[in-house]
Amino acid sequence: MYYYKEELINIIKPDKPDPAAAKVLQEALGGQFGEMRTMMQYFFQSSNFRGKAKQYRDLIRGVFLEEISHVELVQSTINQLLNDSGLSTPGNAGVDGAPIDEAVKHANPHHFIVGAKSSLPVDAGGNPWNGSWVYNHGNLIADLLNNLMLESTGVLQKTRIYEMSSNQTLRETLGFLIVRDNAHQNAFAKALETLGVNWGKLFPVPNYDINKYPECRKYVEMGYHNAQFNFRLDQTRIGEIFNGQTPSRNGGELMVTDPPEGFPVPELPDMPNEHASGLYDLNS
Amino acid sequence: MYYYKEELINIIKPDKPDPAAAKVLQEALGGQFGEMRTMMQYFFQSSNFRGKAKQYRDLIRGVFLEEISHVELVQSTINQLLNDSGLSTPGNAGVDGAPIDEAVKHANPHHFIVGAKSSLPVDAGGNPWNGSWVYNHGNLIADLLNNLMLESTGVLQKTRIYEMSSNQTLRETLGFLIVRDNAHQNAFAKALETLGVNWGKLFPVPNYDINKYPECRKYVEMGYHNAQFNFRLDQTRIGEIFNGQTPSRNGGELMVTDPPEGFPVPELPDMPNEHASGLYDLNS
Amino acid sequence: MYYYKEELINIIKPDKPDPAAAKVLQEALGGQFGEMRTMMQYFFQSSNFRGKAKQYRDLIRGVFLEEISHVELVQSTINQLLNDSGLSTPGNAGVDGAPIDEAVKHANPHHFIVGAKSSLPVDAGGNPWNGSWVYNHGNLIADLLNNLMLESTGVLQKTRIYEMSSNQTLRETLGFLIVRDNAHQNAFAKALETLGVNWGKLFPVPNYDINKYPECRKYVEMGYHNAQFNFRLDQTRIGEIFNGQTPSRNGGELMVTDPPEGFPVPELPDMPNEHASGLYDLNS
Amino acid sequence: MYYYKEELINIIKPDKPDPAAAKVLQEALGGQFGEMRTMMQYFFQSSNFRGKAKQYRDLIRGVFLEEISHVELVQSTINQLLNDSGLSTPGNAGVDGAPIDEAVKHANPHHFIVGAKSSLPVDAGGNPWNGSWVYNHGNLIADLLNNLMLESTGVLQKTRIYEMSSNQTLRETLGFLIVRDNAHQNAFAKALETLGVNWGKLFPVPNYDINKYPECRKYVEMGYHNAQFNFRLDQTRIGEIFNGQTPSRNGGELMVTDPPEGFPVPELPDMPNEHASGLYDLNS
Amino acid sequence: MYYYKEELINIIKPDKPDPAAAKVLQEALGGQFGEMRTMMQYFFQSSNFRGKAKQYRDLIRGVFLEEISHVELVQSTINQLLNDSGLSTPGNAGVDGAPIDEAVKHANPHHFIVGAKSSLPVDAGGNPWNGSWVYNHGNLIADLLNNLMLESTGVLQKTRIYEMSSNQTLRETLGFLIVRDNAHQNAFAKALETLGVNWGKLFPVPNYDINKYPECRKYVEMGYHNAQFNFRLDQTRIGEIFNGQTPSRNGGELMVTDPPEGFPVPELPDMPNEHASGLYDLNS
Amino acid sequence: MYYYKEELINIIKPDKPDPAAAKVLQEALGGQFGEMRTMMQYFFQSSNFRGKAKQYRDLIRGVFLEEISHVELVQSTINQLLNDSGLSTPGNAGVDGAPIDEAVKHANPHHFIVGAKSSLPVDAGGNPWNGSWVYNHGNLIADLLNNLMLESTGVLQKTRIYEMSSNQTLRETLGFLIVRDNAHQNAFAKALETLGVNWGKLFPVPNYDINKYPECRKYVEMGYHNAQFNFRLDQTRIGEIFNGQTPSRNGGELMVTDPPEGFPVPELPDMPNEHASGLYDLNS
Repeated sequence: MYYYKEELINIIKPDKPDPAAAKVLQEALGGQFGEMRTMMQYFFQSSNFRGKAKQYRDLIRGVFLEEISHVELVQSTINQLLNDSGLSTPGNAGVDGAPIDEAVKHANPHHFIVGAKSSLPVDAGGNPWNGSWVYNHGNLIADLLNNLMLESTGVLQKTRIYEMSSNQTLRETLGFLIVRDNAHQNAFAKALETLGVNWGKLFPVPNYDINKYPECRKYVEMGYHNAQFNFRLDQTRIGEIFNGQTPSRNGGELMVTDPPEGFPVPELPDMPNEHASGLYDLNS
Repeated sequence: MYYYKEELINIIKPDKPDPAAAKVLQEALGGQFGEMRTMMQYFFQSSNFRGKAKQYRDLIRGVFLEEISHVELVQSTINQLLNDSGLSTPGNAGVDGAPIDEAVKHANPHHFIVGAKSSLPVDAGGNPWNGSWVYNHGNLIADLLNNLMLESTGVLQKTRIYEMSSNQTLRETLGFLIVRDNAHQNAFAKALETLGVNWGKLFPVPNYDINKYPECRKYVEMGYHNAQFNFRLDQTRIGEIFNGQTPSRNGGELMVTDPPEGFPVPELPDMPNEHASGLYDLNS
Repeated sequence: MYYYKEELINIIKPDKPDPAAAKVLQEALGGQFGEMRTMMQYFFQSSNFRGKAKQYRDLIRGVFLEEISHVELVQSTINQLLNDSGLSTPGNAGVDGAPIDEAVKHANPHHFIVGAKSSLPVDAGGNPWNGSWVYNHGNLIADLLNNLMLESTGVLQKTRIYEMSSNQTLRETLGFLIVRDNAHQNAFAKALETLGVNWGKLFPVPNYDINKYPECRKYVEMGYHNAQFNFRLDQTRIGEIFNGQTPSRNGGELMVTDPPEGFPVPELPDMPNEHASGLYDLNS
Repeated sequence: MYYYKEELINIIKPDKPDPAAAKVLQEALGGQFGEMRTMMQYFFQSSNFRGKAKQYRDLIRGVFLEEISHVELVQSTINQLLNDSGLSTPGNAGVDGAPIDEAVKHANPHHFIVGAKSSLPVDAGGNPWNGSWVYNHGNLIADLLNNLMLESTGVLQKTRIYEMSSNQTLRETLGFLIVRDNAHQNAFAKALETLGVNWGKLFPVPNYDINKYPECRKYVEMGYHNAQFNFRLDQTRIGEIFNGQTPSRNGGELMVTDPPEGFPVPELPDMPNEHASGLYDLNS
Repeated sequence: MYYYKEELINIIKPDKPDPAAAKVLQEALGGQFGEMRTMMQYFFQSSNFRGKAKQYRDLIRGVFLEEISHVELVQSTINQLLNDSGLSTPGNAGVDGAPIDEAVKHANPHHFIVGAKSSLPVDAGGNPWNGSWVYNHGNLIADLLNNLMLESTGVLQKTRIYEMSSNQTLRETLGFLIVRDNAHQNAFAKALETLGVNWGKLFPVPNYDINKYPECRKYVEMGYHNAQFNFRLDQTRIGEIFNGQTPSRNGGELMVTDPPEGFPVPELPDMPNEHASGLYDLNS
Repeated sequence: MYYYKEELINIIKPDKPDPAAAKVLQEALGGQFGEMRTMMQYFFQSSNFRGKAKQYRDLIRGVFLEEISHVELVQSTINQLLNDSGLSTPGNAGVDGAPIDEAVKHANPHHFIVGAKSSLPVDAGGNPWNGSWVYNHGNLIADLLNNLMLESTGVLQKTRIYEMSSNQTLRETLGFLIVRDNAHQNAFAKALETLGVNWGKLFPVPNYDINKYPECRKYVEMGYHNAQFNFRLDQTRIGEIFNGQTPSRNGGELMVTDPPEGFPVPELPDMPNEHASGLYDLNS
């Protein structure tokens, strides 16, 4: 069973509203290689795991638990980018003109029509998340290879999205996730090492010096690229795999640690009239 | 952030392998009105909630937390139905014939080709789960109406699936979920009562006497239809809504309670050769 | 604007329940070349028609109007095939066993889980109808060529479905629709004749002697293959195109006529308990 | 069977071409909660209705009949927004440059590539209409709850699209449809009242004063929010439900009335060369 | 079996980078009527061909072979349009700003997130290519009618895309393909002539004077509209059909010829850092 | 440009008709990890390759060329399994009963409705092939990791399908493809070795002794698991990578060789009447 404490896994850094940035960041949420995919893929792999080598299941499940927080983090980041976009009077258009005429130009129109300026389970092109993306064939090596490829692609896409906007809200979240995706590359690569592979100098993929990204460097200094956060309230065998020398060029020792101190969930301002939430008297 | 304790929310009742039952039960996992939909819908509604009437958000999030356990419960039930289906030598077909020739006849073939006799994020017809099913328009009344319709449809479908098989593994899980869906109908109907509706004798939908289902009756006697399990490790305002007289014909008082004592996650037997997991030496 | 009289365009011939026949007949309703496609394709072509050559628009719209009745006819045929399938006590499974365990074996399970033993907007494989199938490029010749190909494919598929079952409910409806699809082939082929084509002996496609199908022969004798039913309550220019010698090997003169005498819509029996409709006191 | 008179259910108000407005208005045509969904959902619910409480079927079918006209109205509105967009010489690009280079910038490119500047069965993001959106589970309460949620979502989305453009062609059609969606909310809410619900002050959803929208106010003054237009050429039992006090905060008596006087279908200008219709000599 | 020589079937004409042009040109690659559809449709029709009238199969397979080259030509054209789009330092964003912020505004964001500025199997709206588009019903006349409609639609869409940009890279490729689509119209129309049709003056569709497109005229002068390129390394019966008078208004004699002299495959410049290919030392 | 010689890459071994086997074998053709995916993925990776390390592009393109033949091989195998399924008189149902009533029971109904007993671009569950499956991110390591995972999954699925039927037509084709997929695993693993990985004893995945499959053993004895067939008519740099010690437990030296002697394409018998091809006089 799953428990919750109302804290985000990283901070939402404020910057100005930016619907175009929100649109492309959706790839990291609902895209084929985004956080919903990683969350659901590791969920199915955990629940469907066969046999007694439970240390591998505990590793996969441990990453799954963190990915739920990643989904929540990207949802919250997109919401922050959409808050207050458009003129100040949405919901009064009958008297006040077309307040989001301009905002919608480079936006995903569904952020305004379907969502109340809020995140959606879709990618940067507006395609909905699809269950066929979940890879879980049960053969452990095949599953781990896919996980490794998935985390590598996650980093690659995030560095590309990073180049599409200098908005600090977007970049702070991407920076954190890039470092964590590297940690998860380490986790799955290490698991494959226990099965015989020697990765040489292949990882991380892509071959960036993540210290060149200022948003990443501080998390590297905190050791987040070599840490596996433990969200279990009972015992886990994850440390049997996630320990010792990292398989990555970045070097260092792998360690299972407590989760980070949590960050407050931002207050999402209500929207005038009925677009959301429609509960003015109760908003106190 | 999300925490986990390795316990199922209900027991997996053993019965014989039954791939045809596994196929139709997929609707309750990856179908348009299945547990993955409820889980992701309430996740987005929680993260995207606007304004200060947080008691509604806490209610929705509370149900979301339970739905993660429901997904895990249905995954585990489907796995149990697929365990040991087919002849005893899968993975040795080169020498041993066509051991799952017969098993696949009324099955979803992907349970054997894509999964290692394990659950998939698809519905009873094999269609993959789709993000466009998530309803989250931000207007609280619209969102609650959809949630109510979703939980009603969930019960309706589950009673229909119940009629498709007398397998006890399938029926025990459906019985538990029918009662919990009724509790969640109560939760959302009650929330709409606080906003002005008087439901008369409309709920639950469908209008069954659930005591006629033996698998349901025992959970009703435990009060599960009027309980909201609390998975929060910090404070929640859920009790401001979920209390007092039930909106349902079934009667009784609504109460926020601790989660049930958990049930052990079943050992999934490994499969010979490489279909899963391929780790014989490590299976100990 | 659209008006309605509660009459079916052809009779629903009774035969025994047959979920396997219902499953394959869905192709003619929600398939890529089924009646929903023809209905929506001609609807968009009518509304989006440009220029003053309105006789072509009236022809396309005339066929559109009939296709609405075709959709209703196939829906009703599928319902008839599903009525009373399974044992007699659906909705009492809690006490009565698994009444549709057997019925669902060769069925589309969604006919029982999603529908109350009733038709769905999907094809024979369970894939949902998709808007991308609608062809409407605005260039009249391209649109007419597609319509002709669509009607030819419709006949071809229906003769193949015909071979999958000897159920009279299924065959009577298919027989009627095959003859009407031939009439619509004639309509679009004739329209292309006015633009310069000489079809030689190409049509109808496929090259069957439809008189060999007893269900078809009687409609041929009634002249339905050369008639265009007129559902307009005001004037139409459809007769400017649909007249004179048929472009088909079958011979005869094309004529715009009144619609057939309508047939009564069958009473669909209610289902016990709540599966449908849940309104016992009101059922009188 | 279905009959037609060539009249639109509301006027197409002229304004300047606006492909960006056409793009977002597609949501109201081919979106998950648009007019094609309502039309097809009520069509399946009508044809698949079980049991003798035909007054409910007549109510659903009555709304279905109007929805066909709504689809035609939105198609025609989108066409009007696309007419004459781009430079004046489309179809002569070989000699005349790139006349729609600019027009396509904020447009759905398929409006120009697939359609001849005409409506498509897709949503504002370009996703095709999908049959899985049709809700028809046969249990009357479940179906009515979904219909109510659907009409509420329709209004909510339309008020949001309204804010995206001040184009009068778009706003006039949205204003009319908002009022009619309110009438249909009333219809389904009233039907649920006959089954026991007291809606208190919940409806309409969203909780707007629609008189603040000038395009809506005039239709309210005409009583369109409390009227059910009757498109039947034979008897209907719709008035057994749709009568008496409205369930809405807006007040008033519900009444079954004749359809509005129809409006002329606009002439769609032809396009040069072959893009559409390619029939210059015949255009007279 | 299939063999390859590293040559393009037409030249890639250089012009400036243009992501907006690349976006709309995707329709001709991965759209419902694009080159991937023609390639796969004729592939299935060839492999699945029944009976002894092999001259028809050889005709269809002959066109299939050319379509593989068309896919490669459009892929290469899109790559050329994306090369060097954005500022010069992608992959250094951590230190260098947001180099593709501007480029992505009217682009398909997946060209930058998923592809390394390279072509994708999607259409102009970003929808992925779909196997359900392949038409292969086995009845020869039905298949040929669909092929004819497909090639006609191909030309129609390409002339519309042509009007969306004056970029020479885009226009040169479209010009070549328009002429070849006309040749393929001729091939399938001719095949239908051998089965009895007289096309009168119907083709080509659309009814353009392609000599008005300067990019087309030179290929017409080379006779490409009446030629069928032969990519077979063994015997083919294609000439039994593709010969004699063209069925098109454009006039001339049909002829099977050698393929064109090939054109060099352009060098695609590498991208800095890791976006692509990540192999600096090996790039020599 | 692409050339063709009418030869299959392996023999079609005759056995009895088997629509149930044809249904599951579709996974290897149009499934997410089937031959159409590998073919199109390597096609896009080849055409979109950046930079000067062309030996990697030549390797990927070399595998692409073989995959076209694999698609044709699986198409032909499925056709063979469908030939003569059902009673002997399809196309005469009007007089002869329901000849494919029985055959369709465990079949994909589209094999008979859409295809003329012939292969389709869909998977074992009937889902159409989808362009979003193509992985081509441009970063060479990421692309190679995906290719390796894809080939491993291909083998895993094929060994599972192998267990579903003892039909020799199905098994012979699967045996050949399993060995070739192993060769392609070697190709991509070797490419990653040149970039630093030491695979230890990880490959092939899954960890079967393929000599236990009699259909595989003979191809292993012919060295097909260590050969890269060369379909180029000009020079290729593929041998710079594909040489030396195999990365697989199976051992041996990698070698670029000529393609196998081709096998005759089987005559597909025509079908009576019009289902296919409809050309009786021409069938000689």
